[in-house]
Amino acid sequence: VSGARAGEGGNPAPVERLIRAFVQMPGIGRRSAERMAMHVLRADAQEAAELLESIRDVRERVAPCSYCFNLTDSDPCRICADDARDRTLLMVVEQSRDLVNLEATGFFRGVYHVLGGAIDPLSGVQPDDLTIDGLMARLDDPARHCGGAAVREIIFGLNPTLEGDGTALYLGELLRKRNITVTRLARGIPSGSQLDFASPAVLADAIAGRHAMEGRT
Amino acid sequence: VSGARAGEGGNPAPVERLIRAFVQMPGIGRRSAERMAMHVLRADAQEAAELLESIRDVRERVAPCSYCFNLTDSDPCRICADDARDRTLLMVVEQSRDLVNLEATGFFRGVYHVLGGAIDPLSGVQPDDLTIDGLMARLDDPARHCGGAAVREIIFGLNPTLEGDGTALYLGELLRKRNITVTRLARGIPSGSQLDFASPAVLADAIAGRHAMEGRT
Repeated sequence: VSGARAGEGGNPAPVERLIRAFVQMPGIGRRSAERMAMHVLRADAQEAAELLESIRDVRERVAPCSYCFNLTDSDPCRICADDARDRTLLMVVEQSRDLVNLEATGFFRGVYHVLGGAIDPLSGVQPDDLTIDGLMARLDDPARHCGGAAVREIIFGLNPTLEGDGTALYLGELLRKRNITVTRLARGIPSGSQLDFASPAVLADAIAGRHAMEGRT
Repeated sequence: VSGARAGEGGNPAPVERLIRAFVQMPGIGRRSAERMAMHVLRADAQEAAELLESIRDVRERVAPCSYCFNLTDSDPCRICADDARDRTLLMVVEQSRDLVNLEATGFFRGVYHVLGGAIDPLSGVQPDDLTIDGLMARLDDPARHCGGAAVREIIFGLNPTLEGDGTALYLGELLRKRNITVTRLARGIPSGSQLDFASPAVLADAIAGRHAMEGRT
């Protein structure tokens, strides 16, 4: 929708302000934002209160897990706190959504580490912007690894993209001197897509087919 | 996106709650709602505060104009309050968004009446659910018509749909005994589409080409 479309800017100032707030969200264009603003305006008092409270709540109650950086409303998160999980097996993922998708397979019984993204110099994402220090601290000091177990295998559950592959190479280099098996998900997931979009079946295949990093034994 | 998609329900409860709040909005599916919730979670404090305040503000400060039912943060709205507008020429529209789009043409110098929708028995929208009483009150009592002028022409700026046409017929019948010219927008706007999507040029053509209702003189 072009900026010259009829209607832009003709709304009352508070409506226009809300439209601009919605347009900040990913995937929300001007037109969707307008429809959303109208919906907020017309919603009954209970629905509007629920929306406001949900936003406040998510901001106040959800934070990264101290161990794995998974988004959680309890700390440690339910995965790190679960004694039935294999804490010697650690899957590194880019974001909490990837963890949620991998969990939906019911196939992985280890624990996770959420990097908070992938190294992407073109977008200004440097290794320091990720939770790589936190990952190394967990490996160095089992006390910082919920349950205190030493990690024997790290699986890279990163996006099959340039950035994900680059991040895997970078981390592989950091881990080279440690006595830890480093694997990555099988390329059952089509290259160039987002892990975010994969079905549980595709993700389950990828977990099962994981293989050693090239250049390692 | 099917209900069985990976990830659904695996989020912390406050995130899931916010996703459900966003899914209530028109055109927002599960996946968009998830991305929006993650955005809210990650946004800086200022952006989150702006979103909350915008929602509160739109709820508290925006209401229908007492004269024309246009959404406004001042009462009367800026159009009803504008002495330069021709108050003898009244355009009836379904919703405030239509008014905003028609205003964007810069072509119409009259005033408006916002019905709040169209008669649609299948969706349970009856004449009583619209501001038809308010319209009749404006015509009966010029004091309830901002500026106090008697209306000489009513233009139906309704959607070219079954519901819009039905509403025009219904209103035409109500207005039959009054000494008011009743016109409707020219069908420059393609039948079956939404007035909401028309460009200013198409809307300007439609205003210029308005013609007398059939069966009237």
